[in-house]
Amino acid sequence: MSKKFSKEPLRGMKDFYPSDLRKVRWIEELIGDIANLYDYEEFESPLMESIDIFAAKSSEELVNEQSFIVEKKKGTRLILRPELTPSLARMVARKSQELKRPIRWYSNPVCFRYERPQRGRMRSFQQVNFDILDETSLYAELEMFQILIDILTSFGATSKQFQIYYNNRRLVDAVCKIMLGIPEKDLSKVYKVIDKSEKMNEQEFKDFLKESFKDARICDGIVKLKGVNNLDELVQCFENVPQEFYESIGYKEITELENLIRDNEIVSYCSLNFSVVRGLDYYTGTVFELFDTGSKNIRSICGGGRYDDLLSLFSNEKITGVGFGMGVLMLSLFLETYGLIPDYIGEKDYTDTIYIASINEKVSSYAIKISKLLREEDLPCIVDYRFNNLKNQLSKAGDIGVLITLILGPKEMELNKVTVKNMKTEEQKIVNLEDLVDEIFEIIDYFGDTEE
Amino acid sequence: MSKKFSKEPLRGMKDFYPSDLRKVRWIEELIGDIANLYDYEEFESPLMESIDIFAAKSSEELVNEQSFIVEKKKGTRLILRPELTPSLARMVARKSQELKRPIRWYSNPVCFRYERPQRGRMRSFQQVNFDILDETSLYAELEMFQILIDILTSFGATSKQFQIYYNNRRLVDAVCKIMLGIPEKDLSKVYKVIDKSEKMNEQEFKDFLKESFKDARICDGIVKLKGVNNLDELVQCFENVPQEFYESIGYKEITELENLIRDNEIVSYCSLNFSVVRGLDYYTGTVFELFDTGSKNIRSICGGGRYDDLLSLFSNEKITGVGFGMGVLMLSLFLETYGLIPDYIGEKDYTDTIYIASINEKVSSYAIKISKLLREEDLPCIVDYRFNNLKNQLSKAGDIGVLITLILGPKEMELNKVTVKNMKTEEQKIVNLEDLVDEIFEIIDYFGDTEE
Repeated sequence: MSKKFSKEPLRGMKDFYPSDLRKVRWIEELIGDIANLYDYEEFESPLMESIDIFAAKSSEELVNEQSFIVEKKKGTRLILRPELTPSLARMVARKSQELKRPIRWYSNPVCFRYERPQRGRMRSFQQVNFDILDETSLYAELEMFQILIDILTSFGATSKQFQIYYNNRRLVDAVCKIMLGIPEKDLSKVYKVIDKSEKMNEQEFKDFLKESFKDARICDGIVKLKGVNNLDELVQCFENVPQEFYESIGYKEITELENLIRDNEIVSYCSLNFSVVRGLDYYTGTVFELFDTGSKNIRSICGGGRYDDLLSLFSNEKITGVGFGMGVLMLSLFLETYGLIPDYIGEKDYTDTIYIASINEKVSSYAIKISKLLREEDLPCIVDYRFNNLKNQLSKAGDIGVLITLILGPKEMELNKVTVKNMKTEEQKIVNLEDLVDEIFEIIDYFGDTEE
Repeated sequence: MSKKFSKEPLRGMKDFYPSDLRKVRWIEELIGDIANLYDYEEFESPLMESIDIFAAKSSEELVNEQSFIVEKKKGTRLILRPELTPSLARMVARKSQELKRPIRWYSNPVCFRYERPQRGRMRSFQQVNFDILDETSLYAELEMFQILIDILTSFGATSKQFQIYYNNRRLVDAVCKIMLGIPEKDLSKVYKVIDKSEKMNEQEFKDFLKESFKDARICDGIVKLKGVNNLDELVQCFENVPQEFYESIGYKEITELENLIRDNEIVSYCSLNFSVVRGLDYYTGTVFELFDTGSKNIRSICGGGRYDDLLSLFSNEKITGVGFGMGVLMLSLFLETYGLIPDYIGEKDYTDTIYIASINEKVSSYAIKISKLLREEDLPCIVDYRFNNLKNQLSKAGDIGVLITLILGPKEMELNKVTVKNMKTEEQKIVNLEDLVDEIFEIIDYFGDTEE
């Protein structure tokens, strides 16, 4: 025997057998419904892009360490997209003049990151993206939160089970510059420090801080900030808060966003959290992440924010955007944790599938003719091509779990009749071919499950 | 200004804007319906696989010249799948014991081939696959043909517009060995020669033949064979046809398949064509391709065949399969050629989308509350966040093409009322909030398009 290859998929990649995929499709369908209710239109961009656009705006780590690179010609490096937003920006820039504003788009791309696989993190993963572009007001952020809440609650999740944690980079900037005296050029270092902190214990974080910023006052300030969960706490961290801070754009934006959250009654779903800054470079204003409040799923289910300058990679046009990416796998783990995926979703419903069994091969064309007739009536059919040993065919039909089996023999064929067997009651009935469809629908209506 | 990156997608890749994608989704949905009617279950395999499984069974050219390769660790080469079937075989081998037989699966993967882009051929492309495994009889082939015919005819195509051309590698083998005396080891060379011939003119083909086979009798034989379009013609190519040929498996299979085609009345859709052999190494029996009969689309829309040994890469189990891959792009070009994609498919239907305009920002929460209420009734909503200049908002609603716009002002909010504007008749009506949904459905039922 020749050498055998592994049957397993590559590390960090997943096979979706039909029962796995049914769950994914069920989740995607519901998200698609929400997209439709908010008038987000679906688009698709290619899986590969030039590496430059990600190198310019996403994150150094993402491009240098975590990417899958294809090199077809010397010097031309293509990247399997680690995320969608730069491609979205490219596509919008490309047809900017033709697109109605605000642009509301969604997509469900496969993305790739070369990282150590762990619960909820694969090297190849599906990530639903929603983006609204050219809406400068904070109602754009509100709409994103509403969409997230609608998605989660439509699966049956409650505000006890998930929270949207938001922050604002301009607020972080104001705090750092005005209260901590951190120079402009070091601000991106602050984001990196805070973003990394989630993967460290307290001591590691403090050491890492000390290494990044020599100044003890800055280090202490950042440690304090990380624990902040509302604006009052933030202000209380510091002895004297200068008026300049209250007049900063960051402070104004976060206050306005909190007003919108309160006025539109989604306050139970959202909290300010100063440790949310997001790892991607292109965010400029609001940033947010959605988490399971329990302890089973520690990675974020969704992350997003506002990006003001992303189109500048491609054109001189200035279009602002707010968007999020939601991992379908993380979402499904969350839903499973709280028992929100009904068992029946994984199983195929065979109620209206008609199994066609035949006594011998002489009736094969009759069997196929009937399958054709039934499919024209939107009834799925399986023809058993063994054409002998009726008992085996019926037992197979029973295994699959169909409600109705047709039995065909030379007599039936001669008289244009069909024996219809109700698999639930075991009743058999001979009907004329022209009455077959009515008979089938009668049985389905009476005996079919009414799950949905 | 900083340097700008190209707005174009990479060569051979395509951006799908919402209007493009709607057409693709429409095509995919119809194919999904047919899959359901034949009880084919959807599965998905990862986009990347180890290169070995393709190198072993697909085709040398595919792996060495036409593939996108990722090398993450020295010596471990991953391939972006150029086709799906080896992954299907891996997945079936992996859970073979659990799967009900015959296995009927379908999938709609993105695949990648590094080739010169041309009409109908992109470097990244969607290819629908149908496969039936563990059905040894030729009814499996018949079912594939039926599925193809159902897909094409359900779009409105006729047998004048497309044909399935079939052949059988065992028949080719029998002809080559018995009639032309070609040794076993040179058979794969025959496939290659015939497969390549489609891209050559007559003289190039003859030269290429002479180079591959020195023997003039063999060369002449192959040239004659290529033009063969039915079994009678085939037999007439040779002076003496030995009984051995009529007893060969190839001859028996093709005869049996032709009987099935005749008995099941699909003869107008199918023709034998000796120049169809398929480029992939793993086919062992029937092979087929589906072509536009016209001159506009010269590349095959679909190709497939029977593979008896593909699982042997992964296990000692012997499971036979028949399947096909159909390019979604080629299919859509075919449909466009014959005007089979209705114009309205590319356009979004805004009939039941409610546009919410507001007189000023004081009513913003009222506007958002109403959008929530309507979405709960499955009505898509767009809230205009400008909250001023009603005229602009109404003109925007008109541009989009909604049927109904709601107008909200402080008076409406105070009295829990809404002004409903029918954009077709320009009529306005003030209704109580509790009557809003009924009013909306009344207008949609009366004035909505009844396209579907």
